[in-house]
Amino acid sequence: MSTDTAPPTDDVAKVPGQPQEPGASPGRSDEKGSSDRSGYVQPVVDVAAITALLDGRYAEIRQTVRDQLVEHAQVLVDAEEMTRSDFRDRVRDVVVEMAATGQTGMGFPTEHGGGGDIGASLAAFETLALGDLSVLVKVGVQFGLFGGAVLQLGTQRHHDRYLADIVSGRLMGCFAMTETGHGSNVQALGTVATYDLATQEFVITSTRPDAWKDYIGNAAAHGEMAVVFAQLVVGGESKGVHALMVPIRVDGEPAPGVKIEDDGLKMGLNGVDNGRLWFDGVRVPREALLNRFADVTPEVLYTSDIDNANKRFFTMLGTLVQGRVCVGGAGINASKVAITIATKYALNRRQFEATSETEEELLLDYGLHQRRLFPLLARTYALHFAQEVVAGQVHDVFTGTLDPDADPDLARRELESRAAGTKALGTWHATRTIQECREACGGAGYLAENRFAALKADTDVFTTFEGDNHVLLQLVAKGLLTAYSSEFEDMDQFGMVLFVAGLAVETVIEKTNVHKLLERIKDVLPGGDDRWDQEAGLLDPDYQLAMYRFREEHTLAGVARRLKRGIDSGMNPGQVFSRVQDHVIAAARAHMERLVLEAFVEKTRAMPDGDDKVALNLLCDLHALSGIEADRAWYMEHGRLSSQRSKAISREIADLCRRIRPIAGDLVDALAVPEAMLRSPEMLGRV
Amino acid sequence: MSTDTAPPTDDVAKVPGQPQEPGASPGRSDEKGSSDRSGYVQPVVDVAAITALLDGRYAEIRQTVRDQLVEHAQVLVDAEEMTRSDFRDRVRDVVVEMAATGQTGMGFPTEHGGGGDIGASLAAFETLALGDLSVLVKVGVQFGLFGGAVLQLGTQRHHDRYLADIVSGRLMGCFAMTETGHGSNVQALGTVATYDLATQEFVITSTRPDAWKDYIGNAAAHGEMAVVFAQLVVGGESKGVHALMVPIRVDGEPAPGVKIEDDGLKMGLNGVDNGRLWFDGVRVPREALLNRFADVTPEVLYTSDIDNANKRFFTMLGTLVQGRVCVGGAGINASKVAITIATKYALNRRQFEATSETEEELLLDYGLHQRRLFPLLARTYALHFAQEVVAGQVHDVFTGTLDPDADPDLARRELESRAAGTKALGTWHATRTIQECREACGGAGYLAENRFAALKADTDVFTTFEGDNHVLLQLVAKGLLTAYSSEFEDMDQFGMVLFVAGLAVETVIEKTNVHKLLERIKDVLPGGDDRWDQEAGLLDPDYQLAMYRFREEHTLAGVARRLKRGIDSGMNPGQVFSRVQDHVIAAARAHMERLVLEAFVEKTRAMPDGDDKVALNLLCDLHALSGIEADRAWYMEHGRLSSQRSKAISREIADLCRRIRPIAGDLVDALAVPEAMLRSPEMLGRV
Repeated sequence: MSTDTAPPTDDVAKVPGQPQEPGASPGRSDEKGSSDRSGYVQPVVDVAAITALLDGRYAEIRQTVRDQLVEHAQVLVDAEEMTRSDFRDRVRDVVVEMAATGQTGMGFPTEHGGGGDIGASLAAFETLALGDLSVLVKVGVQFGLFGGAVLQLGTQRHHDRYLADIVSGRLMGCFAMTETGHGSNVQALGTVATYDLATQEFVITSTRPDAWKDYIGNAAAHGEMAVVFAQLVVGGESKGVHALMVPIRVDGEPAPGVKIEDDGLKMGLNGVDNGRLWFDGVRVPREALLNRFADVTPEVLYTSDIDNANKRFFTMLGTLVQGRVCVGGAGINASKVAITIATKYALNRRQFEATSETEEELLLDYGLHQRRLFPLLARTYALHFAQEVVAGQVHDVFTGTLDPDADPDLARRELESRAAGTKALGTWHATRTIQECREACGGAGYLAENRFAALKADTDVFTTFEGDNHVLLQLVAKGLLTAYSSEFEDMDQFGMVLFVAGLAVETVIEKTNVHKLLERIKDVLPGGDDRWDQEAGLLDPDYQLAMYRFREEHTLAGVARRLKRGIDSGMNPGQVFSRVQDHVIAAARAHMERLVLEAFVEKTRAMPDGDDKVALNLLCDLHALSGIEADRAWYMEHGRLSSQRSKAISREIADLCRRIRPIAGDLVDALAVPEAMLRSPEMLGRV
Repeated sequence: MSTDTAPPTDDVAKVPGQPQEPGASPGRSDEKGSSDRSGYVQPVVDVAAITALLDGRYAEIRQTVRDQLVEHAQVLVDAEEMTRSDFRDRVRDVVVEMAATGQTGMGFPTEHGGGGDIGASLAAFETLALGDLSVLVKVGVQFGLFGGAVLQLGTQRHHDRYLADIVSGRLMGCFAMTETGHGSNVQALGTVATYDLATQEFVITSTRPDAWKDYIGNAAAHGEMAVVFAQLVVGGESKGVHALMVPIRVDGEPAPGVKIEDDGLKMGLNGVDNGRLWFDGVRVPREALLNRFADVTPEVLYTSDIDNANKRFFTMLGTLVQGRVCVGGAGINASKVAITIATKYALNRRQFEATSETEEELLLDYGLHQRRLFPLLARTYALHFAQEVVAGQVHDVFTGTLDPDADPDLARRELESRAAGTKALGTWHATRTIQECREACGGAGYLAENRFAALKADTDVFTTFEGDNHVLLQLVAKGLLTAYSSEFEDMDQFGMVLFVAGLAVETVIEKTNVHKLLERIKDVLPGGDDRWDQEAGLLDPDYQLAMYRFREEHTLAGVARRLKRGIDSGMNPGQVFSRVQDHVIAAARAHMERLVLEAFVEKTRAMPDGDDKVALNLLCDLHALSGIEADRAWYMEHGRLSSQRSKAISREIADLCRRIRPIAGDLVDALAVPEAMLRSPEMLGRV
C-alpha cells in the first residue's frame, strides 16, 4: 500500500534559490558538536550516561544478566546446530545454571530462595531478551508462569512444598491453561476437575477433543508438574475455572492417566518443549487446589471470599499479570538487538555513488534509510520508558508499596489494562522492527549468523501468547469505557456493550480523566482553547501530548456513542460490538500511545539540561511526531490538523532524522546490547 | 502505531433510531443468494469459473504444476524433518524429477528440449510457489537465472553446448552476480576477468575481500558451472561488467583456483545450497564469454554493437527481467496459501459468545477479522491480475509478438519498469499477508505443520533478492521521470536528477501519459473537471481510477519540481536525491498501484454479467477503496477528499466486507491451492 512509505516532504522546496543550511550538508551527517546557522548545536552523547538512564534503578541486575548472556553466548550458535531434542536439553541446562545465580528467581520471596524484588525480576527477564529467546521463554514458563501461579494462586502449603524446588529449577513445571479449542476465551475451557467427596480428591478429565491442553511449555519433555486450569465441579455444581497442581510426568514417563503429545516443530523457540496434555480421570488430593481465592474443605465444600464466579476468575487471572508485562518487555528488548544491528550495518555499508563521484554512500546517509530506521529507534526508546512505568506499577501493586491514598483494587485493574496494552504495543513493535531491520540489511540479514532469522522466528508468537494482542486491546478499551468500574472484570462483551449503552457519553468521558488532562494541557498552549492546535510549536511536548489526548478522548467518545446508538436501534449487543470493534481497538491504541508518549516526555523532562537531554528530545520529538504523522488522516478528518501543518510535520520529521543521523551510532550503543549478542561479524565489519 | 488499524467506521451511526438493514444481520453472514432491502442480491459464486478466470490461458500448465505439487507433497514434511544436507539433495532430486515432466523448461527453445512458451513458463513457475519454496527457488536458480543467462546472454555456441543439459537438470549451475560488498550496485563489482591475449583466455580474479560472489544458489553443493559477472578488462581497458561461463566444481570438488564456502543456515529456503565463490586466477577460454551483446575476438579484441558501456550493461541486465517477474508472481502465489488457510480457519474456529449466549462466534463473523483478512484477499486477486499483465508483456517482448506499431525498445524499457514494480508490490504483499494471516490464526499458526513457519521464513528474502524493493521502485520512478527515454538505462542517480532538472515539470507530466488518461476519465464522471471527486459514486471504477491517476500525476509532478528546485538552489544532485528519495518512492508506488487497479478493473469489466462478476466487483471495489483509505491523508492534504467522503469510504469498506463474508470461502477456494499444500489438518477441521 502506498502509505507504508512516508509521505513526501517538501524540505527541498523550503528555501528556493539558496543553499540549504550551509555547513550542514543535507542527507549526511553534521559533525558532532558543530552548530548550524539556526543556532542548533549537535549534541555530543554520553553513551554510558544514557545507558544508565535506560537501566534505571535496576542497572545492577541488568548488567548481571548481560554478563551472563555473554557467558552463555554459545547457545545462539547451538540453536542453529543442535538437533531439536539436544537443543531443548541445552536450553534447560542454561536455564538451571542461570537459576543458580539467582537472577531468574528475583521475584520470589527470600524465604523460598528468591530475591524478593519483583521490579528486579522484571528487569532481569526483559534483559534476557537480548539473547536466545528459547532461554527467555523457558525462564518465563518455569519461573513466571509455573512458579508465578504457585506463588500467586497457592497458599503456604504450596509455597513450602514447591517454591524452593521451582526457584532452583529442580522441579520443572507447566502452566496448563490454553487448550486447542480455547486460548483467548479461557472461561470456556473443556478440562474438568470434579471433587470426589468420598476420597477428598479431584478427578481431572479432558472432556472434549479440543480440550487438550495445548502449546504448553515444558510439557513435551521436562515438566514434572503442571498448574492445570479446569472447570471446578463441587457437589455437582460448576464453580468456574480454578487451578490445581497435577503431576504429569514421573521418572521421565507420563504420569498415570496423563497423555502427552509433542507440539512438534514450531516457527521458532524450538528450544522450548511445547506439548499437549490430556487427562483421563487423573486423581489429585484436595490440597492440590491452589486455594488462595477459593477452597474446598471437608467441612463446607466450596468456599470463596469472592462470590461472583466471573469476578473470582478474573481476580485469579489478574495476579498473573506479570507474564504479560514480561512478554511486552521482551518484545521491546528484542527490538533493541534488531535496531542496533541495522543501524550499525548502515554505518558500515556503502552502496552507490550518491553525493560523491568516487566513493559510495553510507546507507545511513540516505534520507529514506533514516526514515526507515530512526522512527523505530525512537519508538524503541519510548516503549522502553513506558515499560519501565508499567513494571514499576507491578512492583508497587505486588509489593504493597502503593501510594497510601490509592485504591488498591482500582490500581490493580488499571495495571491489568496497562500491562495488556503495553504488551500489545511492545510485541507488535518487535514484529515490525525486526522485519524492517532485516529488509534494511538486505541479503546479509537473511543469514542465520546475523541474528534476524532467530529474532524473527522466535518473537513471532509474542503477539499471540500471554493474550492475543487484539483481545488485549479490547480489554484496554473495556477498562476505559467502564472507567475500571468494580464490575469491570465481571463483564463480557455483552456486558460491556450494555454497560456503556446505559451511560451518558459525557459520563464515559468524564470518568476516564482524559478530558481533564486535555483541558489542563490546552491551558498552557498558545492560542488557548480555540487555536492551540494551530499556534503551538510542533516540538512543544505539550502540543504533542494534547494531540494524543485529544485523539484518545475523541475516539473513546465515538465508541461510546456508537455503542449506545447500536443498542438504542435494537441491535443485538454482539452485533453492535462486531460493527464497532475496529473503533474499540482504535480507542485502546490511542490510549496506549498517549501513555507511551507521556512516559517518554516525563523521562526527558526530568533530565538535567545538557547534550544528552538534547539528544533524547530529538528521539522523543521524532516519536511523537511520527505518531501524529501516521494518523494524520484521522487528525485532518477531525479538524485538528490543517493540510499545511500536516505537511510541516513531515518536514520536521525529516529534519529530526538528519539531526539524529550523527548520533545514531551512539544512541544504539546506549541500548547496551552486548557485542556477542549482535554476532553479524561481517555485517558489522568486525572480521 | 495506531493507524495500523482501520479507522473507525460510523456504520452503526448511520440510521440512528431504527434497525440496520433488516434481513441482513450485521457482522455475520447474509445467506447466499438472499437480497436485502436495497435490492442487493448476494451472489452465488461458481468456484470453478473463477478459478478458470484466474488461470487464464495457462490453465493447463497451472493444473499440471498443481498436480505435481500434490505428488511431491512429502517435501513439505521433509523440509522440517531432514538434515539441511539431506534436504538440499532431496530438493535437487525433486527439481530434476519435475524437469523431466517439461514444466520447468517451458521457457527454453524446443530445439534444446524446452517448451518454447515463455508465458507458460512464467505461469508454471509462479504456481510452484503454492508448494515448498526451496523447490521453487532451486528451479528459479537453475532454469531462470543460470539457464536464462545462458539463453539470453549467450549465443549459438553456448546454447548448443549447454542448454539441453541445463533444461534436463543434468548440468546444475549458478548465477554468480551478487558479491558480499555489492548487491544492488552491480556495476561496482570487484570480480575481474582479464583477457590474456597470448593464450586467448580470460583470467578470473576476485580482487577484494568483499568481492566474494555471495548468496549464490547452487554454489555450496550442486553447481558445476557458473555464469560469472565480472569487470571485463581487454587490452588493459575496462569494458564494464560482462558474464562468462566458468566451471566451479569438478567431480564434487571445487575446480582449480576456485574457493567455495557455504553460506550456512539461513532464515529459510534451506533446501537451496547458497554459497560463496572466490576466483584466484581461474582461466577460461575466450569462448566462455557470453557474447550476445559484446565479444572478444582474436582479430579486433573487444567489439560490441552498443557503444556506451552503461547502456550495454543495462541491456544485458534487461534480458534477465524474467527473474523479477517470477519472484513477484511467487510472492503473490505464496500469499494465496496464507490467505486460504487463515480464511478457512476463521470459518472453522469459534471464540467467545458474541451474538449468541449459547454458541461461540465464528472468527470470520467478527467485523475486525473481516477487516484484517478481506482487503488482503482482494489485493491478492488484484495482484494476480496485474501479474498476468506483466507476464503477458514478457511473453510478447521475448517472443516477438508485440503489436507491430509498438517501439520494441520502449516496450522493453516499460516492461523492465513494470516488472520491477510488480515484484516489489507482490513480495511486500507476501510479507504482509503471511504475517497478518499467521497472527489471525493465533498459536496454531505458529506450529510448523500449519505452513506459516515455512511461508514466512522462505518468502522473507523475496523483498531483497532479484533486486531490493526500494531500489526497484527507484528504477520505476526513473522510468516515469524520464519517460523511458532512450538515455534511461544510461543514467545513474546523478544523471536522473540532472536530466529531470533540465526539463520543464509540465514536460515530465505530459510525457508520462498519466495526464491524458486522467483527463479522459474525468470526462466521463459526473461533475466534470470541477467536482468529479465529490459527485461520482464511490463504487464507480472510473472514480476509483481517477483518484489513483490523480495521485500518480500529482506525486510525480511534485518529485520533478523538487528535483529541479534542489538543483537550482545549488545542491549536489546526490544530496537532492537523498532528500527527495521518499517522494521518489511514493511516486513509483502510486504508479504501480494505478497499474494494479487498472488490471483488476479491466478484468472484471470484461466478465459477462452475472453473480461471478458481482462477486469479483466486490473484491475490486474493496481493493480500490482500501487503497484510497490507506492514503486518505494524502488525498485530504491535496484537496481531493473531504473528511466526510473519507469517512464514507471507511463505511463503504465495512459494507463491502459484510457482503464478501458469505462468499469468502468460495473466493479462497477459487484460488485453487491444493488441499495437500494447505496441510493444517486440525486448524481446518479435517481430523
